[in-house]
Amino acid sequence: MEILNQYQKIVGDAINKYSFKSKPNEFYEPMNYIISLGGKRIRPVMVLMACDMFGGNTEESVKPALAIEFFHNFSLMHDDIMDKAPLRRNKPSVHTLYGINSGILSGDGLVFKAFKFFEDLEPETFKLCLKVFTKSTILVCEGQQYDINFETQQNVTFDDYIKMITYKTAALSSSSLAIGALISGTKLKNVVAIAKFGKHLGIAFQMMDDYLDVFGDQSQLGKKHAGDIYENKKTLLYFLAKKHATESEIKELDYWYLKKTDNIDKVYEVEKIFKKNKVDEKALRLIEKHTEIAQSYLQKTDISEDNKKPFVELANYLLKRES
Amino acid sequence: MEILNQYQKIVGDAINKYSFKSKPNEFYEPMNYIISLGGKRIRPVMVLMACDMFGGNTEESVKPALAIEFFHNFSLMHDDIMDKAPLRRNKPSVHTLYGINSGILSGDGLVFKAFKFFEDLEPETFKLCLKVFTKSTILVCEGQQYDINFETQQNVTFDDYIKMITYKTAALSSSSLAIGALISGTKLKNVVAIAKFGKHLGIAFQMMDDYLDVFGDQSQLGKKHAGDIYENKKTLLYFLAKKHATESEIKELDYWYLKKTDNIDKVYEVEKIFKKNKVDEKALRLIEKHTEIAQSYLQKTDISEDNKKPFVELANYLLKRES
Repeated sequence: MEILNQYQKIVGDAINKYSFKSKPNEFYEPMNYIISLGGKRIRPVMVLMACDMFGGNTEESVKPALAIEFFHNFSLMHDDIMDKAPLRRNKPSVHTLYGINSGILSGDGLVFKAFKFFEDLEPETFKLCLKVFTKSTILVCEGQQYDINFETQQNVTFDDYIKMITYKTAALSSSSLAIGALISGTKLKNVVAIAKFGKHLGIAFQMMDDYLDVFGDQSQLGKKHAGDIYENKKTLLYFLAKKHATESEIKELDYWYLKKTDNIDKVYEVEKIFKKNKVDEKALRLIEKHTEIAQSYLQKTDISEDNKKPFVELANYLLKRES
Repeated sequence: MEILNQYQKIVGDAINKYSFKSKPNEFYEPMNYIISLGGKRIRPVMVLMACDMFGGNTEESVKPALAIEFFHNFSLMHDDIMDKAPLRRNKPSVHTLYGINSGILSGDGLVFKAFKFFEDLEPETFKLCLKVFTKSTILVCEGQQYDINFETQQNVTFDDYIKMITYKTAALSSSSLAIGALISGTKLKNVVAIAKFGKHLGIAFQMMDDYLDVFGDQSQLGKKHAGDIYENKKTLLYFLAKKHATESEIKELDYWYLKKTDNIDKVYEVEKIFKKNKVDEKALRLIEKHTEIAQSYLQKTDISEDNKKPFVELANYLLKRES
C-alpha cells in the first residue's frame, strides 16, 4: 500500500501544481471542481507505476498521468449528464452545480487539456503515446454507447457485456499502463504484456464496481445504492442472476428490467433474486479469475520480482476495496 | 473559384472514402449525418491549399484536412445543444434528430477521430501539427465560453468581442493553414505568416457571419433569421450600433438585449436601429479591413505570386458569399 500512497501523493501534488488558473473562470472552474473531488486516482497511479517499474524517469510520466486523469474526469462529466446523475463522489455532479452547458463545454476543454499534457514528450514517444491514448478515448466512447444501448436492448449476451466493460473501463487502465511503459522506453514486449495486465485488471475493476453498486458500503460509495438496478443497467450481477435463476425468477427480472421506475420494490425484488442465487459470491469469484489472468500477463514481463510487486499490490487493492 | 472547387472535390471524395462504418451504429451514424450536411468545407480546403501552395504533397494533408472538418463539426454538434438550435444547414441539428445524449457522445467520438486522422504523419510533423491543433481546440472552447458569457454580461467591449471571435472562429482557420503549411515542410517564417493570414481571414469570416445573420439571404442561410438577436448575442452589428446610435436608441437596444423573448417586435425594433445607423455598410467596411490585413500577411510569405492567388481567391470567396 505504501508505494500506492507514494504515487497517489505525486499525482495529488501535480494536480495542485497544474490546477487551471486561466480565464474564462466559467470554463476552468468546473474542471478544477471535478478534479478536486478526488477519487482513488488509480489510472494516473498506473502511468507512474509502469514508467517507474520499467526503469523510466517517473518525472517524465507525471503530466501524461494527469492527462489520463483529465480524460477520465471528462468522461465522468459527460456520462453524468447522459445518465442524469445528480451526485458524483457524494458531491453534486458538474452539471448539477454548473448546468448542462458547462458540463458539456468544460468537459470538452478538460479532454483537450489532456492532449496538451503529452507535449513535453519527444516526438517519437509523443506519437506512440498519443496513438495509444486516442485509441482508448474512442473505445471508451464506444463502450459508453453500448452501455446506453443495453439499457433498452433485450438480447444482450454475457459476451456483449464483457466487450462493453472492456471498452468502457478496461481500455483506459490498459492504456494507462501502456503509456507509462512507453515513456520508460522499455521493449515492446513489456508494453504489450503490461497493457494486457491492465486490461484484465480493468475488467475485474468494473466487475467490482457492478458488485459494489448492490453489495458495497453505501456511505463510502458516493453514489446512489443500486443505481444500476434503477437504470436497468445490465451488469455482471444481472447476467449471473439470469444464468442461475429459476424460470419464474427470470420472468420477474425481465419484468423489472423493462420498467423505468423509482419504486423501491424494484430494488427489493431484484436484490432478493440476486441474493437467493448467490450472485455476490459468484461475482467475486469471476473478479478473482480476471485478476489471475491479469497476473499471468504480469509474469510475461521481464522485470524483476521486486518490480512486479507494486502491480500485485495494485490488483489486491482494487480487489479488496469496499467503495 | 476553380481551384477552390478542386480542393472541395478532394475533401468531398475523402469524406465519402472515410465515412464511418464501424459499430455501434448509434454512435457513428450521427457523425456521418452531420458531416453529410456539407457546408462550404472551407477549413479542410485551407489545409489542402496551404500544403499544396507551399510545395507539399497534397495527399499527405488529406486526412489532417478531414481532422479539421471533424473538429469543426464536433463543435457544431455541441454548440447546437448549448444554443438549443433546432436547425443546422436547414436540416435538423444532431440532437434534434438523435437526442441530446447522442449529440454529446457522438460529438466526443468525432473529435477523437479527428486526433486519429493525424496519425499517418511522421513523428516530428505529427507533433508540430498536434500542438497547433490542440491549442486551437482549447481556444475554440474558450471562445464559445466567452460567447455564452456575453449573452448575459453587460459590460462587453468591442475588444472583448474581437478576442471572442478570434478564439471561437479565427483560431481554427489560422491553425488549418498552419497545419497545411507544416505538412508541406516549408520554413517556419511561412507557417507563421500564413497562420496570421488565416487568423484575420477568420475574423473577417465571423464578422461576415454576424452580418449575414441579419442581412443575409435567409433561404440560403440554413439558420433562423436574426437568431443572434433573439439570443442576445453581442455581434459586430450590435457593437457598431452601440457606437453610432443616439442615446435613446442605445437605451432601446439595452432594453431588448436584456429580454429573452421570441417576440418578433424585438427583431423588428433592433433591425430598425441597425439600418438607421447603417451598420450594414460599416460592417462590410470592417470586414474588408481585416481581409486587407490578412493579405498583408500573405505578402510576407516567400511563395510565388501564382501560388498566392488561391489564397486571394479564398478571401474573395469568403467576402462575397451571401450565406
